[in-house]
Amino acid sequence: MEIANVFMQRAIELSKLGMQGGKGGPFGCVIVKDGKIVGEGYNQVTSNNDPTAHAEITAIRDACKKLQTFQLDGCEIYTSCEPCPMCLGAIYWARPDKIYFANTREDAQSIGFDDSFIYDEIPLAITARKIPMEQLNRDAAKLVFDEWNNKTDKIEY
Amino acid sequence: MEIANVFMQRAIELSKLGMQGGKGGPFGCVIVKDGKIVGEGYNQVTSNNDPTAHAEITAIRDACKKLQTFQLDGCEIYTSCEPCPMCLGAIYWARPDKIYFANTREDAQSIGFDDSFIYDEIPLAITARKIPMEQLNRDAAKLVFDEWNNKTDKIEY
Repeated sequence: MEIANVFMQRAIELSKLGMQGGKGGPFGCVIVKDGKIVGEGYNQVTSNNDPTAHAEITAIRDACKKLQTFQLDGCEIYTSCEPCPMCLGAIYWARPDKIYFANTREDAQSIGFDDSFIYDEIPLAITARKIPMEQLNRDAAKLVFDEWNNKTDKIEY
Repeated sequence: MEIANVFMQRAIELSKLGMQGGKGGPFGCVIVKDGKIVGEGYNQVTSNNDPTAHAEITAIRDACKKLQTFQLDGCEIYTSCEPCPMCLGAIYWARPDKIYFANTREDAQSIGFDDSFIYDEIPLAITARKIPMEQLNRDAAKLVFDEWNNKTDKIEY
């Protein structure tokens, strides 16, 4: 078996363990660097009262904590399902080298998860989305952005 | 001043406090239910080594912990900047009633943040994205989804 399949098997095993343990939905993820697992996670939305506790977010947080970094360059992500937009966004912020996935967003939709719906909503104009969005107080918020721009000791990411 | 502006002012104040305290980027968020703040957050990416610790994610986790729920129905989110795709995805999973924002994704881009780039990437076909994605082991992962589908004691979300 190729090494990539071994890492994916572990992600799938985590999806099963989390589900069977009543932690949340059937999703698992591992993060690999230099051929070794540096982070693991499974979905814990319902058990932790945390809608952001998807497998990928949990694994990214675990890997970053272990590696003491907020960037996962040189890493690969193995997830048992194509990441939802939240997790794909998190992956882009973490900037790993590659994503491996098993089930698709359509597979997730077919067992009752909103991934596909959220993929449809994200690219829409603000006025066209199902959750209403309204802009307020931009002038006051923009002053803080200007302060960031002029800050000399900031850590960029 | 309208009450909505008061809540947004608090979100903007949090963006400034987090930035000035060296916690991370200039972003703040509050979550309101029945006219009261039930969750707050600011960006803590660089101080916590957590690329997922955006203001909205932090505030959602805070509100869910306080309310002991994984759903924010009946809540409004006030964020000092239009949510990035990760945070917008998190908001869709949390399902609040409304989103108020101040700065835009273009404002974020103009001070060096990737929000706009990630918005461009999310809707692309898997093969067209900057981070390569490859499918592996779907058959094995699909079995776990089937098990979820047949599970009688699952908590859906």
